[in-house]
Amino acid sequence: MEKLSRFVPLLGQISTYDRAKFSSDLIAATVVTIMLIPQSLAYAMLAGLPAELGLYASIFPLLAYALFGSCKTLAVGPVAIASLMTASALGKVTALGIIGYVEGAMLLALLSGIFLLLLGVFRLGFISNFLSHPVVVGFITASGLVIALSQFKHILGIKAEGHNFVEIVYSTISNLTQFNTYTLIIGVCSVLFLFWARQGSAKLLERFGISKSLAFSLSKAAPVVGVAVTTLVVSQFGLDKQGVAIVGTIPTGMPSLVLPSFSWAAVEALFVPAVLISIIGYVESVSVGRTLSAKKRERIDGNQELIALGAANIASGMSGAFPVTGGFARSVVNYDAGAETQFAAIFTAVGISLAALFLTPLLHYLPIAMLAATIIVAVLSLVDFSIFKRAWDFSKSDFAAVSITVFLTLLMGVEIGVASGIIASILLLLHHTSKPHIAEVGLLPNSEHFRNILHFDVECHPSVLSLRVDESLLFSNVSYLEEYISDLITKRPDAKAVILDCAAINTIDLSAVEMLEALNHRLSHQNIALHLSEVKVPVQRLLKRSGLLEELTGEMHLSQYDAYQSLVKHYE
Amino acid sequence: MEKLSRFVPLLGQISTYDRAKFSSDLIAATVVTIMLIPQSLAYAMLAGLPAELGLYASIFPLLAYALFGSCKTLAVGPVAIASLMTASALGKVTALGIIGYVEGAMLLALLSGIFLLLLGVFRLGFISNFLSHPVVVGFITASGLVIALSQFKHILGIKAEGHNFVEIVYSTISNLTQFNTYTLIIGVCSVLFLFWARQGSAKLLERFGISKSLAFSLSKAAPVVGVAVTTLVVSQFGLDKQGVAIVGTIPTGMPSLVLPSFSWAAVEALFVPAVLISIIGYVESVSVGRTLSAKKRERIDGNQELIALGAANIASGMSGAFPVTGGFARSVVNYDAGAETQFAAIFTAVGISLAALFLTPLLHYLPIAMLAATIIVAVLSLVDFSIFKRAWDFSKSDFAAVSITVFLTLLMGVEIGVASGIIASILLLLHHTSKPHIAEVGLLPNSEHFRNILHFDVECHPSVLSLRVDESLLFSNVSYLEEYISDLITKRPDAKAVILDCAAINTIDLSAVEMLEALNHRLSHQNIALHLSEVKVPVQRLLKRSGLLEELTGEMHLSQYDAYQSLVKHYE
Repeated sequence: MEKLSRFVPLLGQISTYDRAKFSSDLIAATVVTIMLIPQSLAYAMLAGLPAELGLYASIFPLLAYALFGSCKTLAVGPVAIASLMTASALGKVTALGIIGYVEGAMLLALLSGIFLLLLGVFRLGFISNFLSHPVVVGFITASGLVIALSQFKHILGIKAEGHNFVEIVYSTISNLTQFNTYTLIIGVCSVLFLFWARQGSAKLLERFGISKSLAFSLSKAAPVVGVAVTTLVVSQFGLDKQGVAIVGTIPTGMPSLVLPSFSWAAVEALFVPAVLISIIGYVESVSVGRTLSAKKRERIDGNQELIALGAANIASGMSGAFPVTGGFARSVVNYDAGAETQFAAIFTAVGISLAALFLTPLLHYLPIAMLAATIIVAVLSLVDFSIFKRAWDFSKSDFAAVSITVFLTLLMGVEIGVASGIIASILLLLHHTSKPHIAEVGLLPNSEHFRNILHFDVECHPSVLSLRVDESLLFSNVSYLEEYISDLITKRPDAKAVILDCAAINTIDLSAVEMLEALNHRLSHQNIALHLSEVKVPVQRLLKRSGLLEELTGEMHLSQYDAYQSLVKHYE
Repeated sequence: MEKLSRFVPLLGQISTYDRAKFSSDLIAATVVTIMLIPQSLAYAMLAGLPAELGLYASIFPLLAYALFGSCKTLAVGPVAIASLMTASALGKVTALGIIGYVEGAMLLALLSGIFLLLLGVFRLGFISNFLSHPVVVGFITASGLVIALSQFKHILGIKAEGHNFVEIVYSTISNLTQFNTYTLIIGVCSVLFLFWARQGSAKLLERFGISKSLAFSLSKAAPVVGVAVTTLVVSQFGLDKQGVAIVGTIPTGMPSLVLPSFSWAAVEALFVPAVLISIIGYVESVSVGRTLSAKKRERIDGNQELIALGAANIASGMSGAFPVTGGFARSVVNYDAGAETQFAAIFTAVGISLAALFLTPLLHYLPIAMLAATIIVAVLSLVDFSIFKRAWDFSKSDFAAVSITVFLTLLMGVEIGVASGIIASILLLLHHTSKPHIAEVGLLPNSEHFRNILHFDVECHPSVLSLRVDESLLFSNVSYLEEYISDLITKRPDAKAVILDCAAINTIDLSAVEMLEALNHRLSHQNIALHLSEVKVPVQRLLKRSGLLEELTGEMHLSQYDAYQSLVKHYE
């Protein structure tokens, strides 16, 4: 049982589940359900899919995450960025006629789920380290802008197209004159209301004597108020006949579990987008999960999260829906509304099911402009321009990586944006790790300590070169070390021995060992012996295994001081 | 002049050039020319190109490298791996009808040259760190096998096709019965002769009283002896009429400098192969160059090498030829035959020009089987199976990376092979760097030193957690640190302060700073203060710039001992 509950964390909750937790979870689930209904519809629209699929994506995936997830309060479902990436991927693939739009969305969720699941099972969560945090923030900011802008057409009631910022701006502006007055009024009012509601509604409720935390939760229901009011206005005044676009008939019912039909060509075409959506989704979800868990001094397990998000996406794909992940806003609401366990997510799934079964006929006259307003207000909170300033102040290379990501996301679309973000991150890492800190050191007079010859007045011997490397030796930095030593040797014609102080080398890889072998060999041609000092035990073990120690022209010394003293004596 | 000679290292040689150096260079150039003629023809054949292009690739590119290269004895020209990669890239692209075969080869060289040149100009040589050394050795071994096997058909005088090991084996075996007896005899004798010549010929010459080093150089002329003998045999006995494939008429003349005609579609299709060829070529060339330069206590400059190899490839593309790089065997021969400066390469280019102008009619009856034998004997020296054992002994992850590379190169071809090698290398790096060594430390009694609580009997305080991180903090490892601390906190319910000993942190990136900010924030929710100690000056500067120090709930302490003492006093 204990073993099983490691894989299915929910099981660990059952024995201690009581009435108090039940009622807390139920309240949180009610608030999240109310918040999730308009969001689900809106994100389905953003993904270019029928509205009901948004609801479907908020039923079985929640159950799947509840079973396997290690964060008790994470709220999973459709989110803005993944929906935009879905639309972008499907736009290209369906244009080729390889697969239909809805089947494509299902397949994308399924592939993403399988990829996440495999990463989790093989404990490969570290590959999310591909992305540096500033690059992620830059990508999300740029995507948020693209998403917000893409919704302007719905606020204006015009037609506009485009896959990147420039195209959308151009298309929106050139069709601007065809705006629909009623749509514009509804859209602008909705945006203003939702913006006000984020801060103002809670304050208003507090003034009516409602407690601060309840007011916060209730304020999250503002979009539902907006939905109700705008739907009523449209249906009462027959505005749909005046050109106001409405959601229309949403089929009632529950999703049925099926496998999407697909061809291998479709799998090939959607594989890379699925991987990108997975990585971005995981990075975001895990950062939310970690923040919430830490508040309760609980821990989350990265690999378990991969499994749970994988299961959620597989469930989404099989429900006929599209990629999902842990959402920031709704998880915070879930937590603040008092959710105690993953049962809150199960209750939310029940709530959304009821909506799918009974509520959809009421949403017939819901204006698209209201959904667009929901999206705009939601994504603008993702936009964070301060990342530019922070990166600029911090380092020019971080700034370059962020700028490239933002620029390419805006100009070339999300896929190229995130792919170049990953490449920029890796280049940054290689750049950072490719120059290990190396110092030529000398003996501090009247001590056994060695210090950088550039900063201290130290004792050196012309025949003995002392070097200290301040990083682990890996293939990414060995060529720098190799070049550094080769250069130094050309400047020290009297050198007869090099001592490498290895105190800071925690690990070493095979490339580094082979470099040391080559270095040892080359130095021996120049009649220079290579000595090592202060080698840590695990590194010693690796060096022994590789056979380097047998070939070493010099020796391995316990301390740099011992090595220096004995060599100075030897060459005097 | 001095500034110019930094960009054109050859200029630095002219003022000190004398008769002694001239004669040394001339002797070396003669030996290398004799060695290079059959190799050039053979590698052109391997690349699927007319034989004369091999000679063309050995004229202007040598001049270009001689002008810009920083290694005095590197011999540039067509090499086996780059030729195989050229054939593989062109096979795919020309099948699509985007570009002709010869134009494609020229464009490939040109693109590769431009890419290398840009890397050099922008000093981006560190991106060759993408490849771990064992992965490179694995890739070369697998490519060597593919190349050797692909030449068996020429030894047998049969037709066979295929782009990977399995296809070639299958095709060779199924056509085995159609072998040509004369071809087989010439081919097998040539292979045996060349194998013997590698070791035996020098010994034989020494027995005739020739000095060891001269014998070594002369033994490199063995392929030319083989070429002469087999050509004579074929022409004398009219074996070409018996089905022995011959080189045929090679046009005489010098290459003219032209730009290849191309379309953007061709550039798009050949860009990735050009990048892969460039990286592999650079990595190999620079390792040869570094070895040779070190023997004379000279240094080579990675970025200057990129510029020189870039210029060489541009020259090759404009000569109507294909990608070139520094070759291992011929550079060693050049060095051992006494080359002193880059003038040796210029003399070699003159030698090859004379061959292109006057020698080619003599090569009409040269049997293809002889060229195939040259290739087989050359590439089998690249094959190094010991890498499997070394990697296995060293670490299982290195072994996995090597195996994947070898396996995919054999099965899927060189491009997928080298691409997966790069990915495997990066995954290895991320894996290595994603788990920084972190230790919970305690105070060693009667000292000011802190040691790992797992290995030493040390003093700890329940409210004060002391942690030491042994690596620089970068985005690739911060999430591990974050998780580590979060986990530890859940196990230490009484913790009120965390002190991070930063003595080993040499650098920090923006992701790491943001992680520390988030950690600081989260810990403050749990009423735990975050303290830092022993922060190095450059890291302090970065932390100050980021604003973290203002938000820090704890303080920055000079030493871990000070921090621990004052906090223990505070919480007592």
